[in-house]
Amino acid sequence: MPQAIDTLLNARWIVPVEPENQALEQHALAIQDGRILSILPRAQALARYRPKLALDLDRHVLLPGLINAHTHASMTLLRGLADDLPLMTWLQEHIWPVEARWAGADFVRDGALLAMAEMLRGGTTCFNDMYMFPDAVADAARACGIRACVGLIAFDFPTGYAQTMDEYLAKGLQLHDALRSEPLLHTAFAPHAPYTVSEPALAQIGRLAGDLNIPVHIHAHETAAEVARFQAQRGCRPLERLERLGLLTPRLVAVHMTQLEPAEIERLAQAGAHVAHCPESNLKLASGFCPTARLDAAGVTVAIGTDGAASNNDLDMFGELRTAALLGKGVAGDATVLPAARVLRMATLNGARALGLDAETGSLEPGKSADLIAVDLEQPETEPVYHPISQLVYATGRHQVTDAWVAGRRLLAERQLTTLDCADLIRRARDWRRKITAEHPV
Amino acid sequence: MPQAIDTLLNARWIVPVEPENQALEQHALAIQDGRILSILPRAQALARYRPKLALDLDRHVLLPGLINAHTHASMTLLRGLADDLPLMTWLQEHIWPVEARWAGADFVRDGALLAMAEMLRGGTTCFNDMYMFPDAVADAARACGIRACVGLIAFDFPTGYAQTMDEYLAKGLQLHDALRSEPLLHTAFAPHAPYTVSEPALAQIGRLAGDLNIPVHIHAHETAAEVARFQAQRGCRPLERLERLGLLTPRLVAVHMTQLEPAEIERLAQAGAHVAHCPESNLKLASGFCPTARLDAAGVTVAIGTDGAASNNDLDMFGELRTAALLGKGVAGDATVLPAARVLRMATLNGARALGLDAETGSLEPGKSADLIAVDLEQPETEPVYHPISQLVYATGRHQVTDAWVAGRRLLAERQLTTLDCADLIRRARDWRRKITAEHPV
Repeated sequence: MPQAIDTLLNARWIVPVEPENQALEQHALAIQDGRILSILPRAQALARYRPKLALDLDRHVLLPGLINAHTHASMTLLRGLADDLPLMTWLQEHIWPVEARWAGADFVRDGALLAMAEMLRGGTTCFNDMYMFPDAVADAARACGIRACVGLIAFDFPTGYAQTMDEYLAKGLQLHDALRSEPLLHTAFAPHAPYTVSEPALAQIGRLAGDLNIPVHIHAHETAAEVARFQAQRGCRPLERLERLGLLTPRLVAVHMTQLEPAEIERLAQAGAHVAHCPESNLKLASGFCPTARLDAAGVTVAIGTDGAASNNDLDMFGELRTAALLGKGVAGDATVLPAARVLRMATLNGARALGLDAETGSLEPGKSADLIAVDLEQPETEPVYHPISQLVYATGRHQVTDAWVAGRRLLAERQLTTLDCADLIRRARDWRRKITAEHPV
Repeated sequence: MPQAIDTLLNARWIVPVEPENQALEQHALAIQDGRILSILPRAQALARYRPKLALDLDRHVLLPGLINAHTHASMTLLRGLADDLPLMTWLQEHIWPVEARWAGADFVRDGALLAMAEMLRGGTTCFNDMYMFPDAVADAARACGIRACVGLIAFDFPTGYAQTMDEYLAKGLQLHDALRSEPLLHTAFAPHAPYTVSEPALAQIGRLAGDLNIPVHIHAHETAAEVARFQAQRGCRPLERLERLGLLTPRLVAVHMTQLEPAEIERLAQAGAHVAHCPESNLKLASGFCPTARLDAAGVTVAIGTDGAASNNDLDMFGELRTAALLGKGVAGDATVLPAARVLRMATLNGARALGLDAETGSLEPGKSADLIAVDLEQPETEPVYHPISQLVYATGRHQVTDAWVAGRRLLAERQLTTLDCADLIRRARDWRRKITAEHPV
């Protein structure tokens, strides 16, 4: 007697990511109550299950949804505002003044929704955010149905969101409490960087993160100049300071990390800390090269993020993981490092690990949330297929993502978003552009 | 009295590439007899012309078709056959044995057609090829209608295409003659590399190229190991040898060039020689980093190529130019080098210059061939638009190319290829995969 289930997805290939480098042919994935029930040969599935919805994905690979381990989602509204500038000119003359004038809760919500449309259409089902008004990001994510880890942001200086460290932290803790029962909304502390958050505040955040058992998401060692300045002013490198303050733990998600000495790689590995690698942002801002192959070999969990759209200029995780694969080889001077399956893991399961969500998402395993995507490989751009994983990493474009599910809910169906109105989001983005350019000539 | 013309394209923006960094708003481009007649404000065009076909491209940028300055088109059939391997293992155990067994004229034609489908769908309207059976590539390009520069290939060793240097050159000259009257098919000598073609043959090719006034398309300085081996065996670096043999001229298209000393950059600039930069291939094979910003600053024309799909693994010029922009900044350690408009020029007009075709194509200027593409920016991924050129370089995906024209003929119309049958090309690609994998386990 076949078992009644919610959904059965019959796919040409299933790439579960765990185990690594496996592509199951002609298998099916069963979903019940938003969770993965089983993965089994297609013929067996047909006999075993009576699904409410069955989809034949004969041209497709089914794989875990990609996890964007570092972004500032709302900055989609500043996409391409100012490019090809030195970092400080870009920040001081363009990004910061525009943010100071405009980045309120409405801006954050509209930008985050546009980002979610872009991310879902590109196969990203979970993102780790850092921006002002994380409550607005959470509201937007709830409306969309995407999985998100919203950053409880903190700076030493006031923004439109909060005036003092106490206010940042109080608002952060309040948001953490408010989201406690939400299955798709997670939180991380997000102190901006070691040079923008005081030591007492960092120490306090470290303690709070331990109490709540949530990650600490922080920019660190982004450029050589930043590390040198920190060393000159404080007498040590930022990572050493984070360690002394109690932040070098398995909860640390250190973003960028282009400047790393061998001993620091060893310390990250011993501590079980995570690195969020943003290769395109690092290239575009000429920040340096994260030694991803060495980190990976040392056992550090490297996840992949796009950074914000103002410095990338997209939230394309397929593009980003491809750049991570290519750049990792180029920087290591070794074509054999970071093989395709390993980089795909970085963009999925490693992202989940960094966020402490690997029991819930990041791979296709029974019991995990059904966070997954279907990618159509039957296109001139991805034929013939010798190895589906190689094809995903080295040849696939994000527009080949046809469907995306989060907790079993189909948020992208044959390229159409089911919970977001693209035309409305584009209209809103244009309104913001008009307002911004009226006061800030570009 | 309005003038009768063939086609009028009314676009939201027109980016002519020459002059650099210009985006004309609400302009129109008039086409007559396959050539660009004029570019003018939309309102003026409506009054002046009576077109047989008028298209409103209200969401679009119109720009020159991209020029892929280095590829081995037919290798699409080996896309992803073997990845993440050391260069010599990849070549000796995978690519070369498979080519020796299968790469005949049928393989070359089928692979080249698949490549053209991919290139046109991605906005490439002209490519510079190097492979065996260039006659089959030319036939395929003629059938497709794309512009191509086919390589008159030469090696010291026999292949299925020719047995001796004399035979390579005789076949090459014959093909050159046969294509002489074809407006869209061009030729270049394509001696594989300084280490695979003897000095007398290179010298002869240099003389013939001068007589015929066609380019010499050659791999050079791809890896440090190659340059070191050459130096050890021949007592000088390859570029020096090419110069002594008379090949360092404005006809030279030197591919890869990851190993360059300052004096060599100066010599390239003085000689008016061209560099075809293949950033993704260089990264994937860990070949080294081409100093593109320094070459550009020295006045060397840098063009951009994808290399073959076996080492990239796609023919995505939008992806490639983006990688060129990002990597150029990263390698130079300067976010201001290679601004978006300059990199777009590399992927268009500089490619035409390298091939000696800049009087004919590469920019939108009256009198030039109507080789152009339309890109839909009204997508969540590319909104809002502050600067259309920045958007094209840093955020646009190739799937946003909706239309492509070569010499005024619309080869891609609203994402549909008008001269190629994608389903048939995919079937053929799969047949080749089956044949290849039956004998060559992957």
